[in-house]
Amino acid sequence: MSEELTLRPFFWRATRLFPETEVVSRTHDGIDRYTYTDFGDRVQRLAAALADLGVEPGDRVGTLGWNTHRHLEAYYAVPLSGAQLHTVNLLLQDDNVEYIINDAADDVLIVDRDAVAILDRLWDRIEGVREIVVMDDAVPETEADLPLSAFEELIADADPMASWPPLSEDDLAGMCYTSGTTGKPKGVEYTHKMLYAHAMMVMTPAALNIAEDDVVMPVVPMFHVNSWEFPYAVTMAGAKQVYPGPSPDPADLVDLIESEDVTLTAGVPTVWIDVLDYLDEHGGDLSSLERIVVGGSAAPREVMRRYEDEHDVAIEHAWGMTETMSIGSVSRPTSGTADGDREADLDKRAKQGVLSPGLEMRVVGDDGESIAWDGEAFGELLVRGPSVVGEYYNRPEANETDFVAADDGGARWLRTGDIVTVDEDGYIEVVDRAKDVIKSGGEWISSIELENALMAHDDIAEAVVIAAPHERWQERPLAFVVPKAGREIDVETVRTFLEAEFPRWWLPDDIRFREEIPKTATGKFDKKTLRESIEEPDLPYAPGEGGDE
Amino acid sequence: MSEELTLRPFFWRATRLFPETEVVSRTHDGIDRYTYTDFGDRVQRLAAALADLGVEPGDRVGTLGWNTHRHLEAYYAVPLSGAQLHTVNLLLQDDNVEYIINDAADDVLIVDRDAVAILDRLWDRIEGVREIVVMDDAVPETEADLPLSAFEELIADADPMASWPPLSEDDLAGMCYTSGTTGKPKGVEYTHKMLYAHAMMVMTPAALNIAEDDVVMPVVPMFHVNSWEFPYAVTMAGAKQVYPGPSPDPADLVDLIESEDVTLTAGVPTVWIDVLDYLDEHGGDLSSLERIVVGGSAAPREVMRRYEDEHDVAIEHAWGMTETMSIGSVSRPTSGTADGDREADLDKRAKQGVLSPGLEMRVVGDDGESIAWDGEAFGELLVRGPSVVGEYYNRPEANETDFVAADDGGARWLRTGDIVTVDEDGYIEVVDRAKDVIKSGGEWISSIELENALMAHDDIAEAVVIAAPHERWQERPLAFVVPKAGREIDVETVRTFLEAEFPRWWLPDDIRFREEIPKTATGKFDKKTLRESIEEPDLPYAPGEGGDE
Repeated sequence: MSEELTLRPFFWRATRLFPETEVVSRTHDGIDRYTYTDFGDRVQRLAAALADLGVEPGDRVGTLGWNTHRHLEAYYAVPLSGAQLHTVNLLLQDDNVEYIINDAADDVLIVDRDAVAILDRLWDRIEGVREIVVMDDAVPETEADLPLSAFEELIADADPMASWPPLSEDDLAGMCYTSGTTGKPKGVEYTHKMLYAHAMMVMTPAALNIAEDDVVMPVVPMFHVNSWEFPYAVTMAGAKQVYPGPSPDPADLVDLIESEDVTLTAGVPTVWIDVLDYLDEHGGDLSSLERIVVGGSAAPREVMRRYEDEHDVAIEHAWGMTETMSIGSVSRPTSGTADGDREADLDKRAKQGVLSPGLEMRVVGDDGESIAWDGEAFGELLVRGPSVVGEYYNRPEANETDFVAADDGGARWLRTGDIVTVDEDGYIEVVDRAKDVIKSGGEWISSIELENALMAHDDIAEAVVIAAPHERWQERPLAFVVPKAGREIDVETVRTFLEAEFPRWWLPDDIRFREEIPKTATGKFDKKTLRESIEEPDLPYAPGEGGDE
Repeated sequence: MSEELTLRPFFWRATRLFPETEVVSRTHDGIDRYTYTDFGDRVQRLAAALADLGVEPGDRVGTLGWNTHRHLEAYYAVPLSGAQLHTVNLLLQDDNVEYIINDAADDVLIVDRDAVAILDRLWDRIEGVREIVVMDDAVPETEADLPLSAFEELIADADPMASWPPLSEDDLAGMCYTSGTTGKPKGVEYTHKMLYAHAMMVMTPAALNIAEDDVVMPVVPMFHVNSWEFPYAVTMAGAKQVYPGPSPDPADLVDLIESEDVTLTAGVPTVWIDVLDYLDEHGGDLSSLERIVVGGSAAPREVMRRYEDEHDVAIEHAWGMTETMSIGSVSRPTSGTADGDREADLDKRAKQGVLSPGLEMRVVGDDGESIAWDGEAFGELLVRGPSVVGEYYNRPEANETDFVAADDGGARWLRTGDIVTVDEDGYIEVVDRAKDVIKSGGEWISSIELENALMAHDDIAEAVVIAAPHERWQERPLAFVVPKAGREIDVETVRTFLEAEFPRWWLPDDIRFREEIPKTATGKFDKKTLRESIEEPDLPYAPGEGGDE
């Protein structure tokens, strides 16, 4: 048999072939800088220290950490020891942290000093955790009797683990939870083989195109879907990596880009909007930077344009989810799709892009049939591939509802919950979430497209469109609008504004003005709460047409 | 479970996401040009036709073919049908073709019209083959009663196979034989998972860096280690591919580069030396071409220099073998290794390069201990990884001798038989084959370095250095030299010439002049025959030192 697909060669390649390449990390105590040789030594020490703490193959080690070199060390020491790395979002509400740690039954935690307070508050509700390693020089004072030890003390005391235990490619190596906007967060588990296949895919030119001479700064958190696989892909590439540490602000990011010559970075659009504002005010040199990969939501066209014009930086959208191990598609023009035309280029970059190598997709309408790839028709995106999970952890019901059997000899498809169009060039564009799309008379109306149009109005600050139940049409759009401070706007004005852009049957049946719109813990519009608030909707407008009737 | 690692998404991605991208093929009858859509249709028809011919999952389908679109179709139709593609070198001597087809027990053959004559001659010695598909419009006349059918007739008559049978990643998908310079050729088998992992690795920037906007022309034959994986990697990348067809000469290659805007090509150095000669005489436009990947042997420094100076084309060396599914390392400067210095750049490009992502290596001396990575010490290269075979087909003895157990929990190592140095930057350089290196008093002497030095002498046409048995030193170098026509040279002149470059104990104990040197079927010096010819070597020179004594 050939060697199995594990994380072993990731560690080997960086430490043996690129021993002098740097890992740079912003910590609570300033900039930490070392080489892959140092990294390798510390990973082997951490693995030995974890073994001393009783961590065995098959155990689950949770982390609550920022993007730092210590967290990177845990990304390797834990799975290379045969244990499973479970990254927990330290920004979640206590209840969710408690649920996730207990649901995963983590044995040991490795946590940032910022996260100790969370555990201090929660300790009597945490069930199986027997050790907490604080990623710091020393342990802080706590109220509860936490079983704390200091990362740096453990590392200093340990003898580097001489070789890894035998690893199978089907061994569990990683675990993440979905953000859980509906219901309890769901856990997904990644095997060594899945991490191997996904990281190699991420490296390819078709995906994130990571080369040895890149300098990569992952701003997307390491507690969020493995920081989009950068910690594995960049290490395998042997490239320099830069971790921006606890709660980086725009000044921190610009400083690191300047001082470390970052060529590639990635994160959600709001980060890069804030950086742009910072640059407007303070200036800054982004000349080393070539690309910013954004995901999670769409970057405004104007932001893309300004990065390109003012800083010669290309924004590339990417799409993915916890269930696809992050990156599943990346958007940049392919041959013949832009041909140097600026607007055509931006049109392509603004979409979620072309499915990455190794994945397959179907896009299906309500009837389960494939839709046309014409950039107009909507359908739910179904995907499968070696980096798409085949099941949830401990959630038999979701394992029935969230997957669709294939009729072509392949694995079953994951229902992504994303409603998308696909254009003639194969570019995916997310137009809604399946739970938010409005199903009116057999046709689908995108709540997001209506919202984006509303929020483009000069007098509107925020807008949400939800599906209101309707006797005849099944569902009809209902809009909630927050006028900008000091502005006035009425229903007719809004309707007239929308009529210019949408067919009449897309127009919301009612437009309700509010002073604010409820938000979820992660800052998204809380459509669930809004939907629950309209049990008996009063829909004064009778649309002329309601779909394909 | 996630989707298994099979060739399914390779086919899906090219045909669905890049339907208009071209595949261009030079055939016996001129240039054939079609899109990935056409390719997909024909692959599905070929699969159906093979099923009609009785090919079932698990069957072995041999090919004897040039680099053409039809061969590419077989590369997909056979493994996607669950059968195993066994590529046979149609330039081998009849005895070897017979041995290989019978050893593999091929059920069906798909052959170029050029190969029908071989089978006609051999037919009464071929054992299990029940069908022969000729990659042509019609079947030729033959002496023997061959079960021939015409590829194009089968394709035209078949209904495209609607979906592939269920495939497992451990299903056998490919098979190649080693070139067998010592003993009988040895078969190695590739699973779907191995092809998947290797093709993804080949795509990465660290290896061959294949992007969607490349135009790739594989000159390395499709009967030689899967054409270095281009047929799979380029298809997955969605790039245009160009196949140069039967026995391409330099004019054919230059024409295709010019007319198809080829950006990346690959083959053995002699091809590119011939192309350079052709360009000197006839001119030609290589402006689209960015890189030539060479392997098999080393390209002369002067050739590298001239491609760069005269055509702005970079030569990159690659290393690999049948047992590593071709590409295992690629050589180009990495950060800080050349820094724009021309000679340093060429120094790096002239080596076999940096091990590709996913592989691990050890380099060991006679005692099995790792040698220093200082660019000086020699050792045998051991490798392992998901694209390194773990065993030979049907060769239990080689399965014992050609692998070394690991002591670190990983798979056992393949003994490559290559004697290499590794420099401080991790670049491998092959200095000899294990069977040719001269083991003198515990130290190793590279026969290749001596030969290269000898052949650099103005009066020497060819030179071979072999190990002659020696009572005291175990082995000593013995040189055979062919003077250039009309030149004279004597032993003392040769010795003096070598003394300038090598330590005294490296100098051959005898230098014997010959009119010619025996060659193998593939044109290499036949050192085995030479070694057998010196049963009682007469070694007049007593070296001053014989190694580390």
